[in-house]
Amino acid sequence: MPRVYVALIHHPVVNKRGECIASAVTNLDLHDIARAVKTYGGKGFYVATPLTDQQALVEKIISHWTTGVGGAHHPNRKSALEMIRVADTLGAVQEDIGRREGIAPKTVVTSARRRGESLSFAGLRDVIEMDAPVLLVLGTAWGLGEEIMQQADYTLMPIDSRTGYNHLSVRSAASIMLDRLLGNDRE
Amino acid sequence: MPRVYVALIHHPVVNKRGECIASAVTNLDLHDIARAVKTYGGKGFYVATPLTDQQALVEKIISHWTTGVGGAHHPNRKSALEMIRVADTLGAVQEDIGRREGIAPKTVVTSARRRGESLSFAGLRDVIEMDAPVLLVLGTAWGLGEEIMQQADYTLMPIDSRTGYNHLSVRSAASIMLDRLLGNDRE
Repeated sequence: MPRVYVALIHHPVVNKRGECIASAVTNLDLHDIARAVKTYGGKGFYVATPLTDQQALVEKIISHWTTGVGGAHHPNRKSALEMIRVADTLGAVQEDIGRREGIAPKTVVTSARRRGESLSFAGLRDVIEMDAPVLLVLGTAWGLGEEIMQQADYTLMPIDSRTGYNHLSVRSAASIMLDRLLGNDRE
Repeated sequence: MPRVYVALIHHPVVNKRGECIASAVTNLDLHDIARAVKTYGGKGFYVATPLTDQQALVEKIISHWTTGVGGAHHPNRKSALEMIRVADTLGAVQEDIGRREGIAPKTVVTSARRRGESLSFAGLRDVIEMDAPVLLVLGTAWGLGEEIMQQADYTLMPIDSRTGYNHLSVRSAASIMLDRLLGNDRE
């Protein structure tokens, strides 16, 4: 069984001008990525933000769908949103996975832009198949802050579509990455 | 060059109880699917709804991002949202593509549930490579109405993730399908 986790980072991320910011949580990021993680057999989905009001918002959304009326009416949604855990920082995510798995995860950062040496999707599938816990890190806003990019074990190759235009939502990018890493072959 | 179009249908679709309804347009469906269509080199993205207030809403969103302040600040978003066309029905979508391409598109419906005979992703890539215009039809709410399912040329195989849980958002499903059909190999 693959041991793949996803983290969605809201700080440090960059804005359009490359400045470091904390982004606001987007409701559909939680739903779409949780549903994709559940669909592909991921082991958990972390939403990382240091802002306590944003953490409270995430907890409120989760509880609506897991213990509130939403869950009663939509059991499939409940079982997806149950996978979400809230964390302050990427470091806290890594620690939590380390405790659960008994070993630190391989941290894999993602970017829409090509950077230095990067791991192919096939290469990351090999890492997953070697049974290492893997943490796939996605950024909101204009992408992950530099300090996160530099402390990762691997940088995943950008999704290449051959058109030169590569502006997917983080919801789309997470879904495509999970399909490439954990989906059935393209038959 | 592949000639792939996407249509997002808001009527006839089914609700949780299988009843035929017209669904409301979701803002992020427009953004995410337009961005994915643009990223993968699709030729157009149709949003189909017979409700005039919903058509007006879609036009308002498009114009904000193409001629309004949104476009000036986010040129990448502009070039994605420009791909959206509003239509009353699937029939109107097929007619419009027929006029543009000089030949009717092969209409391919999608579902999260397996149904009778279905075309694999590899099979549909072959159709695309034979240079046929292809219209990929996705449903909102709980999926496409039966009358649409029955009049298509092909039914695409559901996205198989091997977990038995298959509850992706339509935004995720569209993105994954485009990646499987038009993306680079999984390297």
